[in-house]
Amino acid sequence: MVHKEEPVVFVNGDLVPESKAVVSVFDRGFRWGDGVYEMSRTFGGRVFKLKEHLERLRWSLNYTRIDPGLSMEELERTTLELVDRNLGTGGPEVEDVGVTHIISRGPMDPTRKATSKPTVVIYTETLAFGMYARWYAQGVKMITPATRRTPPQSLSPKAKISNKMNHFVAQFEAQAIDPEALPLMLDYDGNVAESSGANFFFLAQGCIHVPNRRHVLGGISMDTVLEVAREMGIETREGDYTPFDVYKAEEAFLTSTPWSMAPVVSLNGLKIGQGVPGPVFHQLIQAWSERVGIDIVDQAMAYLQPQERKELVASTSSTPSL
Amino acid sequence: MVHKEEPVVFVNGDLVPESKAVVSVFDRGFRWGDGVYEMSRTFGGRVFKLKEHLERLRWSLNYTRIDPGLSMEELERTTLELVDRNLGTGGPEVEDVGVTHIISRGPMDPTRKATSKPTVVIYTETLAFGMYARWYAQGVKMITPATRRTPPQSLSPKAKISNKMNHFVAQFEAQAIDPEALPLMLDYDGNVAESSGANFFFLAQGCIHVPNRRHVLGGISMDTVLEVAREMGIETREGDYTPFDVYKAEEAFLTSTPWSMAPVVSLNGLKIGQGVPGPVFHQLIQAWSERVGIDIVDQAMAYLQPQERKELVASTSSTPSL
Amino acid sequence: MVHKEEPVVFVNGDLVPESKAVVSVFDRGFRWGDGVYEMSRTFGGRVFKLKEHLERLRWSLNYTRIDPGLSMEELERTTLELVDRNLGTGGPEVEDVGVTHIISRGPMDPTRKATSKPTVVIYTETLAFGMYARWYAQGVKMITPATRRTPPQSLSPKAKISNKMNHFVAQFEAQAIDPEALPLMLDYDGNVAESSGANFFFLAQGCIHVPNRRHVLGGISMDTVLEVAREMGIETREGDYTPFDVYKAEEAFLTSTPWSMAPVVSLNGLKIGQGVPGPVFHQLIQAWSERVGIDIVDQAMAYLQPQERKELVASTSSTPSL
Amino acid sequence: MVHKEEPVVFVNGDLVPESKAVVSVFDRGFRWGDGVYEMSRTFGGRVFKLKEHLERLRWSLNYTRIDPGLSMEELERTTLELVDRNLGTGGPEVEDVGVTHIISRGPMDPTRKATSKPTVVIYTETLAFGMYARWYAQGVKMITPATRRTPPQSLSPKAKISNKMNHFVAQFEAQAIDPEALPLMLDYDGNVAESSGANFFFLAQGCIHVPNRRHVLGGISMDTVLEVAREMGIETREGDYTPFDVYKAEEAFLTSTPWSMAPVVSLNGLKIGQGVPGPVFHQLIQAWSERVGIDIVDQAMAYLQPQERKELVASTSSTPSL
Amino acid sequence: MVHKEEPVVFVNGDLVPESKAVVSVFDRGFRWGDGVYEMSRTFGGRVFKLKEHLERLRWSLNYTRIDPGLSMEELERTTLELVDRNLGTGGPEVEDVGVTHIISRGPMDPTRKATSKPTVVIYTETLAFGMYARWYAQGVKMITPATRRTPPQSLSPKAKISNKMNHFVAQFEAQAIDPEALPLMLDYDGNVAESSGANFFFLAQGCIHVPNRRHVLGGISMDTVLEVAREMGIETREGDYTPFDVYKAEEAFLTSTPWSMAPVVSLNGLKIGQGVPGPVFHQLIQAWSERVGIDIVDQAMAYLQPQERKELVASTSSTPSL
Amino acid sequence: MVHKEEPVVFVNGDLVPESKAVVSVFDRGFRWGDGVYEMSRTFGGRVFKLKEHLERLRWSLNYTRIDPGLSMEELERTTLELVDRNLGTGGPEVEDVGVTHIISRGPMDPTRKATSKPTVVIYTETLAFGMYARWYAQGVKMITPATRRTPPQSLSPKAKISNKMNHFVAQFEAQAIDPEALPLMLDYDGNVAESSGANFFFLAQGCIHVPNRRHVLGGISMDTVLEVAREMGIETREGDYTPFDVYKAEEAFLTSTPWSMAPVVSLNGLKIGQGVPGPVFHQLIQAWSERVGIDIVDQAMAYLQPQERKELVASTSSTPSL
Repeated sequence: MVHKEEPVVFVNGDLVPESKAVVSVFDRGFRWGDGVYEMSRTFGGRVFKLKEHLERLRWSLNYTRIDPGLSMEELERTTLELVDRNLGTGGPEVEDVGVTHIISRGPMDPTRKATSKPTVVIYTETLAFGMYARWYAQGVKMITPATRRTPPQSLSPKAKISNKMNHFVAQFEAQAIDPEALPLMLDYDGNVAESSGANFFFLAQGCIHVPNRRHVLGGISMDTVLEVAREMGIETREGDYTPFDVYKAEEAFLTSTPWSMAPVVSLNGLKIGQGVPGPVFHQLIQAWSERVGIDIVDQAMAYLQPQERKELVASTSSTPSL
Repeated sequence: MVHKEEPVVFVNGDLVPESKAVVSVFDRGFRWGDGVYEMSRTFGGRVFKLKEHLERLRWSLNYTRIDPGLSMEELERTTLELVDRNLGTGGPEVEDVGVTHIISRGPMDPTRKATSKPTVVIYTETLAFGMYARWYAQGVKMITPATRRTPPQSLSPKAKISNKMNHFVAQFEAQAIDPEALPLMLDYDGNVAESSGANFFFLAQGCIHVPNRRHVLGGISMDTVLEVAREMGIETREGDYTPFDVYKAEEAFLTSTPWSMAPVVSLNGLKIGQGVPGPVFHQLIQAWSERVGIDIVDQAMAYLQPQERKELVASTSSTPSL
Repeated sequence: MVHKEEPVVFVNGDLVPESKAVVSVFDRGFRWGDGVYEMSRTFGGRVFKLKEHLERLRWSLNYTRIDPGLSMEELERTTLELVDRNLGTGGPEVEDVGVTHIISRGPMDPTRKATSKPTVVIYTETLAFGMYARWYAQGVKMITPATRRTPPQSLSPKAKISNKMNHFVAQFEAQAIDPEALPLMLDYDGNVAESSGANFFFLAQGCIHVPNRRHVLGGISMDTVLEVAREMGIETREGDYTPFDVYKAEEAFLTSTPWSMAPVVSLNGLKIGQGVPGPVFHQLIQAWSERVGIDIVDQAMAYLQPQERKELVASTSSTPSL
Repeated sequence: MVHKEEPVVFVNGDLVPESKAVVSVFDRGFRWGDGVYEMSRTFGGRVFKLKEHLERLRWSLNYTRIDPGLSMEELERTTLELVDRNLGTGGPEVEDVGVTHIISRGPMDPTRKATSKPTVVIYTETLAFGMYARWYAQGVKMITPATRRTPPQSLSPKAKISNKMNHFVAQFEAQAIDPEALPLMLDYDGNVAESSGANFFFLAQGCIHVPNRRHVLGGISMDTVLEVAREMGIETREGDYTPFDVYKAEEAFLTSTPWSMAPVVSLNGLKIGQGVPGPVFHQLIQAWSERVGIDIVDQAMAYLQPQERKELVASTSSTPSL
Repeated sequence: MVHKEEPVVFVNGDLVPESKAVVSVFDRGFRWGDGVYEMSRTFGGRVFKLKEHLERLRWSLNYTRIDPGLSMEELERTTLELVDRNLGTGGPEVEDVGVTHIISRGPMDPTRKATSKPTVVIYTETLAFGMYARWYAQGVKMITPATRRTPPQSLSPKAKISNKMNHFVAQFEAQAIDPEALPLMLDYDGNVAESSGANFFFLAQGCIHVPNRRHVLGGISMDTVLEVAREMGIETREGDYTPFDVYKAEEAFLTSTPWSMAPVVSLNGLKIGQGVPGPVFHQLIQAWSERVGIDIVDQAMAYLQPQERKELVASTSSTPSL
Repeated sequence: MVHKEEPVVFVNGDLVPESKAVVSVFDRGFRWGDGVYEMSRTFGGRVFKLKEHLERLRWSLNYTRIDPGLSMEELERTTLELVDRNLGTGGPEVEDVGVTHIISRGPMDPTRKATSKPTVVIYTETLAFGMYARWYAQGVKMITPATRRTPPQSLSPKAKISNKMNHFVAQFEAQAIDPEALPLMLDYDGNVAESSGANFFFLAQGCIHVPNRRHVLGGISMDTVLEVAREMGIETREGDYTPFDVYKAEEAFLTSTPWSMAPVVSLNGLKIGQGVPGPVFHQLIQAWSERVGIDIVDQAMAYLQPQERKELVASTSSTPSL
């Protein structure tokens, strides 16, 4: 993708071009992951649920005792200005971007006893629509890795902390089994928790089952799906579920800010439902699309080469549920 | 402290002045703590056990599937050159510095699908000798916080990963009132594990007891103390210990690269031994000092103002064990 | 406080003056905590929910296989007679007292093989209204100690057993951090459980959240608050909550028989809500006061010296929520 | 047993006859088990390992933050005087007694805010030699109850606290049908821990295996057996053992102050070894007897009626190992 | 019981007489329990909820990756034919039988690398009505054994797998305490789970409480009772319950396919309710009887000798709740 | 492989040809896995460590309360006679076979209340030498699956019970994509335990590390390797190890009766050592070969086709450690 103009990044009050947007190597965020972050995105150029993302950011900051030095209102205004400015830079066809906030405790001062002030970074980023398109069409295969989600008595999974290695190790393990799979992490007691950077839930006996929120991030995309599901008359329930419950599911789903929602078609090699994206997935993403005035699947498909798009459609059109 | 010349930092092959040493805001290390690190230090200008530190770094990299793009030999040589160059910069009186390695998976490329190459940073830093001096003389008070050390089934405590928030939250809890207290973290089963960035162990019935290594970083400073202890004829043992065992200890110790070793004088308000730094602490740090040809305590004391030094000595000279 | 006449204590069928009310040193209750107890109190001279307290006592006795040798009706009648008799003894201004039942397995007989008969003790006691007044006005600070609430697979937290050391150790730890704090104990899985002798729950998004009752005493004061809350149209929910959920709460509460209810204003140094007693606390204790025909807060305030009362009001009147 | 003279009890500095030895019903020890205790005994009129018992008492007091107001030396002297005085009271044939120390935090003062001073009680008590005799001859049957030993993260099993209900509930479960069975409690992870008031260990492949001390009281009787075992050339090992390991054992043992040691002959209905007291039990108790100059088994047998003694010997003489 | 004709068994497509119905000793089901099973039964000659049983069988097969080589429809038809044929064989008075499906992965082939095809067995069996009759009249005593139900992170309790030793060991332990008792197994966290081959639930404050389904088989008999309970207006709730909750219950129940439902009258020696079968048990089994057109209790009673029946009725008629 | 004559199987006292060796479909072993088993093998026609295998069988029987109705001596004699008879049947080139014992509780009697007598089966089986040869030459890749080894508080891993589904599910997960991978199961606390039917241990810093035996079968092949290792002067240690420890290992090994020992070359996609069979593996299997007078590797290689053997050697000869 060619940018007409380089997007800018907000770094501690300044707008700088991406290629010049840097932080000190002495920043605690870089050394120790001593920071928090958020990711939101635009639909049709408007940031989706920005207030909810900033509210979650506020509680992540509170938990980690980081004072960003900016009010939530300032963060919101700054974010909107940045997005406005950058949206034009990707050319007319790039209507949507990801929006990332990173706030760290800042660089250590020379005495190593304290930090003078936090580091606040906001940037936009391109979205990997091509990959999303393949997921929408073919679904995602998942594997339960041996590594368990960090338990709440060690670190709250509800805060979005720059400490993602637990998720990454889970991903390495799942992908040692199948390089195309995503991990379905279990919690300390063997309950289904979440994927690496995505919430997981499933449809069984016509009801959507959500893993106990005690062990998972309170996903804003997940909440969006649950809202549209309830509007569609689908019951939702929260509980402690095991892989066996997922094996029996009719459909299963992942949600994540950049790609909204994806269908899960197998777990540990066992098909979920018919092993293809199911009808409820299509209804839900359709309902979400209507909310934001953008056909989420079509938007992603447009990023594929015509040939690839044709093959994807062919490979999935013979499946019963499409 | 006044620098005659600005120290330099190794950033991906280049030596740049500290104030210009930066990484991209798109670096995964900054956003997600997706990296590893090491800290070593010099004694009398020579990096102590650098090979051991680089060996531990190698296994941290292996565990996190990061290929640094440099051999261990190249890292060693680069480190020594950097230290040599920077040692002169602090003036003749600054003979010793900390040495930090940070290696992250690097910046995300624009497609967000992969990273092109890792980020390798090496820098030196000043040491907070004044604070160490007070610890050597007065000892450290510890508190067991509610937050448990991340269990190995979530993330290996033996790898030195840029994911320190579990330690920091423990520190916030221990310091809710007393900012001088350090946390003594317990593991998932309630066993004594480690402090935030420091190993813990204790002397009971004349034998040094080390927490089960399953739940703690394999500290190079701790190993150094255990080596000199064995040379002094002190038995060492590893096991599952609870706070009760620490309450009964004769002495207790912390080790960490920058300040080598410190005595612990209380836990949860209960005195350990006589509640002052004990004789075995003095013997051990003395033996370490001889190994490195530097009196570790004196070096730190020299950084205090004369008046402060006098008060410290006065406050502790009346204690039975000094 | 001056007693005109010495209150009496029920000891195994006899009424004896407090100063002569004793049990044998061979009593298993004294040696091993081999007994159960209850605490109720009067409001305006009437014992509040005595039947509920005796019902809970009955199940504590059943669980510990102690036969009190008295029917619940006899215990109720005896209690009411004792309270009637003692209420006059504190002078006209002492309208309310605590009421304590202790039933142990009794003294060991000389052969050490059995106990001949249980020990049944009932007494009234003065209430520490001054301390309650400060809590009502300023709120309580809480700390999560490292010590976990004894799990149900070791001893049921639902029985009120004379084995309180787990709570006391938690209190020592919390107060090593802040001598004015109360402990907020976590259960074995790191969920919020209860304080030492008090139930804990919190208000979030307008709904009262109660920790899973599996790990906590079924508090009669807590149930009273939940009843009045429901009458006021406040939703209540039971679940597994972590400190993070409490950090996000709008208000938090403690309940305990002697002081009914107190607001919690911070946890581990983080403010809850505005960091002062909140409006829902005031509504709830007001509603409770109406139920019992006594203004619970005013009754306590009356026990303070005028100057202290004035200062308390001053220190809190500037807070937004009062 | 007829006493010529009533034994006396030490209660807070006074010596009072047993029948008058009392504590206030307001004592925290009676209400909440807020105290600690010890039990020792005499062999041939001399208190066995009194210093070790008082040392353990000292650490129980430290853990529970109770200051007894007496030095360990005063406690020792007082104990010896009490024993001397009471030994004569049971008649010439009563050469040995149990010795109990109970120290509680004391009675609550009227304000319910503090306790003025601790309660210190020391008494002697008769031993149930007849029951011991039957155990020595026939062995003990054990059952693993469902209730788990309280874990160290809730309360240290190494302190001897007046909170025994966890043990008693285990005993009720084991004795639901067979009142002669003793519980073999498991720890939170299913490892063999201890009985109710007695340590457990076993002989397998000629080596004595002791449960991990993390979950059990550091028994002074157990240590005595391990000492004599080592003197006899028997290896001892500490580890995490499960019931399966006990089923495979050649012999198993219980130790407790009043009866020193007893053989275990079955667990959950499965025979241990030959299902009768084994040769190593006899060697160990013989060696202990020599240490204290008293034949421990014979002393107990003397308390049986001649007919009962004859039957016991008959019932066990036909077993291979006697 | 005399059979006029020998019943037949379905073995891999063939109907063979019981005495000739065999599987190879090389079958993985025989060697390793590498199979799954189901049990249903007839009421008045009609198989009860066969479809539900086959549906559960389907998910057990899916979880264990066994392909039975038969569709669910074929299995249903085959089952019904087998039952029809065998019902006549027991004489006119034998109207009802148990129906068992066993499907294993089949015999290992000579290379030991694979199995050629699964083994499918279906048979009917006589029911032990006499034993059921005694349970209906007198109730069942239960004991909580030390052995915990296998946790879902090791093997799903929701699949009906030929791996029952965990249940059997629990039964051995409970019956070492009381040979007539059934085990009430706890889960890994000490919650009430299930018996050996039977679901457990209880009535408290007029509501039926069902253990968290995460740790128990989804019993079809249990579901039947819950259905009829809801029809009768009894509320049902699912949760984490401990033995203490059961001790406080008004009634408790077991369900299992062959005997439908039985009352539980004690746990660990403590009476549940009045310690006799309660009124809600009678209402529930009555309602079930109406559903199937068979008086379940009377059917069983008819199998007792008249004298035994008379004694049973006498022994229970004096109890308050009958 | 062509048999001149059909081998025979011992079934409850009779020797029957393999094709006629059957058990009733009513056998509890077939329905519920209610049995135990052993596997041994011959080297050069002699059963290796048969006594040790029968001793382990004896304790499996004891734990499961199955009385085989035969003494260990009878089982040994019967086994040796069966092997003698069958060894000739495979032709002169088949010198070695596997030997399997299966003992179940036997068939249920018609009343379903009891079993009349156990089922005892002994058979020999061919060994899959070709597969072993590939493992010896190329090593085994391992994956840690999400499913945890059944904990000892549910079922003892030290008894060899016909309940293998926990192992099989782990295998399905590890093999979701790569059918050649073997699972490395973790225990409930995330420690390395064992594979499915094979012990695991590793060499680190020149010392062999064996997982805590609490969670694994006491493997006779593992003990053989440890014996020869100690004879070769290699230190061995038992402990709680995590995958991280394995990643750092120099070599890792599996042992199992049919193939003795195999090298492990990767875990979760990370190379162990050089990623090829290491020198210590070769030394150990060589030493074992000398013990039994058979070159274990050569024996297996002989079963490959010449071409396949040539390729195997070629593919591995270029690796540094061969």
